[in-house]
Amino acid sequence: MLQKQKTTKKIVSQQLPLILGKRAFGNIPKTPLKPLEGEFEKPEIITSTIPGPIGKRLIEDLGRIQEIRTIHFLVDFDRSFGNYVVDSDGNVLLDVFCHISSLPLGYNHPSMIKALRTRDAVQLAAHRPALGSLPNVSWGPKLHETLMKVAPEGLTRVFTCANGSEANENAYKTACMWYVNQRRGNKPFTDEEIQSCMLNKPPGTPSLSILSFEKAFHGRTLGALSTTRSKPIHKLDVPAFDWPVAPFPQLKYPLDQFVKENAEEEARCLSRTEEIIKSNKIPVAGMIIEPIQAEGGDRHASPDFFRKLRKIARDNGVAFIVDEVQTGVAATGNFWAFQKWGLDDQPDIVTFSKKSQIAGFFHREEYKMTAPYRNYNTWMGDPLRLLQFEVILNEINKDDQAMLRNVNITGNYLQDSLKELAKKYPHLMKDVRGDGTFIAFDSPTVETRNSIVNAIKLNGVELGACGDQSIRFRPSLVFAPKHASQFLDIFESTISKLK
Amino acid sequence: MLQKQKTTKKIVSQQLPLILGKRAFGNIPKTPLKPLEGEFEKPEIITSTIPGPIGKRLIEDLGRIQEIRTIHFLVDFDRSFGNYVVDSDGNVLLDVFCHISSLPLGYNHPSMIKALRTRDAVQLAAHRPALGSLPNVSWGPKLHETLMKVAPEGLTRVFTCANGSEANENAYKTACMWYVNQRRGNKPFTDEEIQSCMLNKPPGTPSLSILSFEKAFHGRTLGALSTTRSKPIHKLDVPAFDWPVAPFPQLKYPLDQFVKENAEEEARCLSRTEEIIKSNKIPVAGMIIEPIQAEGGDRHASPDFFRKLRKIARDNGVAFIVDEVQTGVAATGNFWAFQKWGLDDQPDIVTFSKKSQIAGFFHREEYKMTAPYRNYNTWMGDPLRLLQFEVILNEINKDDQAMLRNVNITGNYLQDSLKELAKKYPHLMKDVRGDGTFIAFDSPTVETRNSIVNAIKLNGVELGACGDQSIRFRPSLVFAPKHASQFLDIFESTISKLK
Repeated sequence: MLQKQKTTKKIVSQQLPLILGKRAFGNIPKTPLKPLEGEFEKPEIITSTIPGPIGKRLIEDLGRIQEIRTIHFLVDFDRSFGNYVVDSDGNVLLDVFCHISSLPLGYNHPSMIKALRTRDAVQLAAHRPALGSLPNVSWGPKLHETLMKVAPEGLTRVFTCANGSEANENAYKTACMWYVNQRRGNKPFTDEEIQSCMLNKPPGTPSLSILSFEKAFHGRTLGALSTTRSKPIHKLDVPAFDWPVAPFPQLKYPLDQFVKENAEEEARCLSRTEEIIKSNKIPVAGMIIEPIQAEGGDRHASPDFFRKLRKIARDNGVAFIVDEVQTGVAATGNFWAFQKWGLDDQPDIVTFSKKSQIAGFFHREEYKMTAPYRNYNTWMGDPLRLLQFEVILNEINKDDQAMLRNVNITGNYLQDSLKELAKKYPHLMKDVRGDGTFIAFDSPTVETRNSIVNAIKLNGVELGACGDQSIRFRPSLVFAPKHASQFLDIFESTISKLK
Repeated sequence: MLQKQKTTKKIVSQQLPLILGKRAFGNIPKTPLKPLEGEFEKPEIITSTIPGPIGKRLIEDLGRIQEIRTIHFLVDFDRSFGNYVVDSDGNVLLDVFCHISSLPLGYNHPSMIKALRTRDAVQLAAHRPALGSLPNVSWGPKLHETLMKVAPEGLTRVFTCANGSEANENAYKTACMWYVNQRRGNKPFTDEEIQSCMLNKPPGTPSLSILSFEKAFHGRTLGALSTTRSKPIHKLDVPAFDWPVAPFPQLKYPLDQFVKENAEEEARCLSRTEEIIKSNKIPVAGMIIEPIQAEGGDRHASPDFFRKLRKIARDNGVAFIVDEVQTGVAATGNFWAFQKWGLDDQPDIVTFSKKSQIAGFFHREEYKMTAPYRNYNTWMGDPLRLLQFEVILNEINKDDQAMLRNVNITGNYLQDSLKELAKKYPHLMKDVRGDGTFIAFDSPTVETRNSIVNAIKLNGVELGACGDQSIRFRPSLVFAPKHASQFLDIFESTISKLK
């Protein structure tokens, strides 16, 4: 096996133009979140490339059996801690991407490690119950204590599964079953339906559609992929359902300077959406939307837009599905990002995954299955991942939700500072936007964006790209103002050297 | 929380007509597999219903938030061991269903528990890496040491993911990408393809199909479900791709009495399959088939059928996908069930999940992605589940594959004994069939089948149903002749009381 390289404290100085303590970005705000004891103080880059020589060798070896062109570097979980990820070569990076937004408590959080060492956790890991038929004794009580404590108002039931794609796929099935059952008048299936469905023909497998929005991302399996509209490379050569796509507002920034234009843009998108629902040749059973289009480039719309969209869904008898797979679990400053909209009429279905570890969706009572086994699969989620969600939820709720307040304080500080930087470096960054620490900005071109992401990695920061020219921040919930300050110092030092 | 009820040794005698030691089924064969120390000696049923009162209360409570009509009982993992599952009320049942074939080493196998208590396992559980971009350092070496050691010949690469549905969905995408790329002459995507795919239109999202077989089961997400043909309740009201279905042989038993009829039936199915491929209005890019149709009722076909089918796929340029989700990992007496076919020309893609814990598919070199991010998702599997697969593989390989030999010895004994019983109780059971311990028989009606499954549960056996009137055996790989003997005693005692 591998021989691990010891991290050396010696820093290759030309690789790390870190100016800690310079405090270019005003006073660092206080956070109510207790600091993690024993966290690294700062990034340390000890190889001249990332991946370094050990990583390169291992990645080459992996390339004989798997795709490797998408790999950033290899993670040494044993040595990573808090907001700092350690790679195969002993480099320490500040991680503001966190495995595409799916690491809520950072690395090796003491509460998580403690919980996973228990007898309960080991047994849940050892056995994957067929949850739909043979759940573990604590499954129900744990669901009540965890997921149902954060269920959106009125969404009284929860379906669990493996990941975001599967959550959305099952949400679509649920929406279609609800839609057809209404039209069938809650009557039994007809013989014609029963026979035709086995041939994939209507009326049994009906011609129905799920509407999604330009630049949306809802997953990669064939149903989910039919609603994903972020990038051609995801979709090319794969059969898709002939489902409609509606425009999503392309807001202009800063928002306060484009109030009228943005309102008109949102009105245009709403009007076009309703037009599609009313005229689409394949009836629209449901629509799905992200509170912030993440993969598509962190595209936002106003709460007013979403309230009106929800009304359009309601008025037209279309299931309103909110995809919180990337936005959920506190990163935007609310537990669910859609809570910011101030809806009177809650969504019908809300899907989740990533930071929650356990995936699935909440739904209203009227979306309940009319017969057993309609939505079902072998594992139907994973109680080990529910146990992890319990740890995450406990951490979020500690000390009067100090972690959630930390997200807002850190997010505001980071966003304000990035806006200052955007004024100073307008040729490199624009349109800083976000909620909580769920922040992004645009570069003028994809090349500039990629230069920034690559250059800052060699200065000790793992940062994410999204959309065509956006950079996204997806730090953990333990990302505090001091980490933001450290990031900002490294970031300015990095971009100031770019043309 | 729950107060656990202590298992009492007192058995409600009228509930358990167990005649251990009677040895109605000849000499119990010897197995090379070492017995599990500390396993229960026999089932113990202490409540008059299953679920008992504790289970009923908990299930009712779960029913407020999830579907419960599909629940058999609640599992107490802490007290279950080996082949015996303990429920919420302290009942001990011999488990020959094993969470729909997904528990290869039974409950609390010492090697599995030991492995999951290690620092490595706890850290892999704590962090779900984005494996496509930021894999853990040991990911590549572990893949080489585990999955690649059992990769079918010529299938040099592996794609990992969450479960069987996702494995098949990604296999379909891979087949379609391969199919289109060939026709495109390995040239870059055209502008028309790039633009049309974002609207879910051809040529970018092409009109292509995946052929599957009557009674097939390949999963529940929309792509997978379009190939699933086992039961209407899985498909009703859910949109499906207009993909073709071919007949699967309906063999007559006993096989040696229907050689000619069965050969004709297989020839008919093959000929019809080729006809569909040649004439289907939507081109067939791939076909998928289970070595034994499991959910559809344990339907078998001969090795000759599969060899000819593979040739049809090859001759017509159709990707040949074998779904080993339920049949894989040693239960049929070969590591992969399809190995029994004696193919000269291996499948193009083989999918796996369930017993392997880690899911995914093996594929040939020529099915490699032509560009990064074509098949990708956030988690792309789970290194914790790969660690479990390593434990399972080590156990299978111990003592010159004693576990695999055990499966064959136990399976033959169980199947022969069931055939004897079928002669004695022809009004209750027929068509005993199987490979290894992957065995099934049919009841004359769905009602009889359900009576047997329900009655035997109260006598201490958890048994599975499949198809319309089949009973399936899906025990763990530690199910030994003595367990089979115990099962047979309870089984005969149960059915002898049925009409």
